[in-house]
Amino acid sequence: MLQAKDLDRVFNPRSVAVVGDKKDSDYMWLRSLSTFQGEVYSVQIDPREIPGIEELGYRNYPSLLDVPRPVDYVIIAVPRAVAPKIVADCIKAGVGGATLFTAGFAETNSEEGVRLEREIAEIARQANFPLIGPNCMGIFNPRIGLRQDNTQYSGEGGPAGFIAQSGTHAIFFSLVGEAHGVKISKAVSYGNAAVLDSPDYLEYLANDEETKVVGMYVEGVREGRRFFQCLREAASRKPVVVWKGGNSAEGARATACHTGALASAPILWDAAIRQCGAVKVDSLEEMVDVVKALLYLRPPSGRRAGLIAHSGGQSVVITDAFVQEGLAVPLLDDRSYREFASFFDAIGGSYVNPLDISWNVLSLDDLQRTLDIMSRDENVDFLVLEICMPFLSQIWEYYPPFLDNLLQLLGNFNRTCARCFAIVLVAGQMEAEASALRRRLMDAGVVSFPTFQRAARALRKVLDSRRFERDGM
Amino acid sequence: MLQAKDLDRVFNPRSVAVVGDKKDSDYMWLRSLSTFQGEVYSVQIDPREIPGIEELGYRNYPSLLDVPRPVDYVIIAVPRAVAPKIVADCIKAGVGGATLFTAGFAETNSEEGVRLEREIAEIARQANFPLIGPNCMGIFNPRIGLRQDNTQYSGEGGPAGFIAQSGTHAIFFSLVGEAHGVKISKAVSYGNAAVLDSPDYLEYLANDEETKVVGMYVEGVREGRRFFQCLREAASRKPVVVWKGGNSAEGARATACHTGALASAPILWDAAIRQCGAVKVDSLEEMVDVVKALLYLRPPSGRRAGLIAHSGGQSVVITDAFVQEGLAVPLLDDRSYREFASFFDAIGGSYVNPLDISWNVLSLDDLQRTLDIMSRDENVDFLVLEICMPFLSQIWEYYPPFLDNLLQLLGNFNRTCARCFAIVLVAGQMEAEASALRRRLMDAGVVSFPTFQRAARALRKVLDSRRFERDGM
Repeated sequence: MLQAKDLDRVFNPRSVAVVGDKKDSDYMWLRSLSTFQGEVYSVQIDPREIPGIEELGYRNYPSLLDVPRPVDYVIIAVPRAVAPKIVADCIKAGVGGATLFTAGFAETNSEEGVRLEREIAEIARQANFPLIGPNCMGIFNPRIGLRQDNTQYSGEGGPAGFIAQSGTHAIFFSLVGEAHGVKISKAVSYGNAAVLDSPDYLEYLANDEETKVVGMYVEGVREGRRFFQCLREAASRKPVVVWKGGNSAEGARATACHTGALASAPILWDAAIRQCGAVKVDSLEEMVDVVKALLYLRPPSGRRAGLIAHSGGQSVVITDAFVQEGLAVPLLDDRSYREFASFFDAIGGSYVNPLDISWNVLSLDDLQRTLDIMSRDENVDFLVLEICMPFLSQIWEYYPPFLDNLLQLLGNFNRTCARCFAIVLVAGQMEAEASALRRRLMDAGVVSFPTFQRAARALRKVLDSRRFERDGM
Repeated sequence: MLQAKDLDRVFNPRSVAVVGDKKDSDYMWLRSLSTFQGEVYSVQIDPREIPGIEELGYRNYPSLLDVPRPVDYVIIAVPRAVAPKIVADCIKAGVGGATLFTAGFAETNSEEGVRLEREIAEIARQANFPLIGPNCMGIFNPRIGLRQDNTQYSGEGGPAGFIAQSGTHAIFFSLVGEAHGVKISKAVSYGNAAVLDSPDYLEYLANDEETKVVGMYVEGVREGRRFFQCLREAASRKPVVVWKGGNSAEGARATACHTGALASAPILWDAAIRQCGAVKVDSLEEMVDVVKALLYLRPPSGRRAGLIAHSGGQSVVITDAFVQEGLAVPLLDDRSYREFASFFDAIGGSYVNPLDISWNVLSLDDLQRTLDIMSRDENVDFLVLEICMPFLSQIWEYYPPFLDNLLQLLGNFNRTCARCFAIVLVAGQMEAEASALRRRLMDAGVVSFPTFQRAARALRKVLDSRRFERDGM
């Protein structure tokens, strides 16, 4: 039986070989390895492909057995009929592990595909060989420049581990996550899971020191009992966020075609995930938001929100969104009201909770004062401040230093405030400008969400996961 | 009692006067009128403000009664204590109607504010004078360049009418809507509704020929029975979409501070809106999506979706999203399967429904063929195609003509296809690029939504509203 430690070499290789890369796919694997910090070898026997490989600067060998140095990790991209031989070669050559990228196995439900997958699994299992896939994108470890796709970043990694049955979701989470300040420690796309399955990766990332939160997209599991045991064990060590794809008969039909995963009742998954102390999400956006909240928000001390909106209309809507998620928007304590009464005179504004602060008449000093009062209020567990791009950008267009001053104020407040503090950065029609400001907020250490609903949902999920920790419910 | 026709002059003025604009607010009202196609007058008695007004090129008068020509519409931005006198002047001068922008009335729950609001309402009612507000942003009619804010567009209007108790939501809907292809015929922000209330605006827009769909954001109504009568009447003429703000005790506390609107049980609103044949939404995003779907999608003939995703992982997730909204994702008819079997050979793809078309191996000819087969399928009522920016953009970076060809194909297909057809344009981390592509899709006449969930929700809401039409349920 493979152990978590057996995956160490595969997730942290010092040398990688690609078997079967070709011009037709624009040498996608070799190109994705342009950032890899160790040795890269190519294995290809088709003489027409070799000049293109050498042009990219890689040394080609006719067989894995001819590579002169030890290979830690192999990416196999050969036609499916050849795959069993290449897996056998990996084992003979003492390779640390391999990703079988090739599709066309059990997920096609064809006799040939099912037979070949079984044969390959048998070869790997007998040799205790860590095989990832087939029908997947393998490993992403940005710190060492090992990528699944040449649109991914490299150089600096992050604290988020990610396990995805789907290659799209693995890559997509890394790209969208990065744009929202969530970077990857290690990620894996594992496809049909013929040998290594989600519990193996979960065990590995639960024990990985670089990984502080684990996210996973899973379509199905072969050994349900083992999966939930591993999930419980992993969730007791660090937060685990689970996105179950194929949450319906029709969705399950799609998973069967995609990774050959079998159906199971959604309701069982929901309860089991919760009982394991993991957090369940239902979309990529929720995954990004919840992982970000778990990593970078100070944990909220309870369910009572202090909400500060840009205008009256938004103060109503932000309140609806938080109440909809089962969070409270209480009246403030008397001291807060006394303090607000001493200076808050924005006509058209209000400070009941939600606050309607009418940015355009409020100075940054007043904003600071408002945040300070809210951060001391006994009735409030966490603070959320709206920044509404189309309106606020008018202020800094009129007076450019405003934006730098605002960012400094928010960064300082976030550092010194003992409470959980988040921004809702409402883009409106200014999508590009909002995404630039989101990055500046991240640089200042401030977490933002793009809509009231997404902020409320993420905070509720974090609170739910902590309630489990505390009460074991 | 005011009639809908009394509002005609106010919504389509040929002359506008602004009373009380000032440097402190950067002459916001006069600036917003820079695009107005008719006469603009300023009324201001403070001698310190007059040079700034004249610098902007406007003629200033000490009183409305001094303006030498008839004034159709007045924007009142004076301190609240002066407001009654200005409203009286409007009436004396034979003005068509006015917006009272000034805040500080009943929404403050102060004795003075409540008293002044009552006094003004009394003056206006006795003279049958159409008064909008107080505490609001008044009218937006882009065709004649009458704006609420100088970030709004002017010149070409559209078919969407919008009624909002909140100024933020009125302006925000116009800005975000425009970015998603939904332009305004006439919009009004009406605040505390001291005289004219939502039923008046609803009647007006229900009878307005330029307006094909009416959206409204409402926090509370004074005369519930009249509101729902008008809503039923309006919804029998054209689709009406209602967003109720303050859907909870806490939210209602916010509406009370915002526009003085009183609480009512959310459940009553839900049922009443449905019984009137209107569509209920719960956020600005949903409002934009549903109005867009009602205006620009061919009506779906039923609840059965044909879904085409970019990858296996996305095919699972798009299916989950549509099933979650109560839509069906059926197996295709036999003819479709026979036709797909004759050419669809993308390894790793599948065509069960959802389709996983693996764009990177599919030619545009194959895409055309796929869409044609789906559009003839007897088991499917509408088609949804995913475009995933981060992946698809790689194709057109590699081969630039691909994008133009794709847009032409989609535009042609949409024109000739008898079925409802929508795109889900998944931005991922490429928010700016996706918003540019969204505009190109609009130019090609193709409707897109930004996420699977939003597309599914919008289609479900359109179907629900049509079911009511058909079955009266």
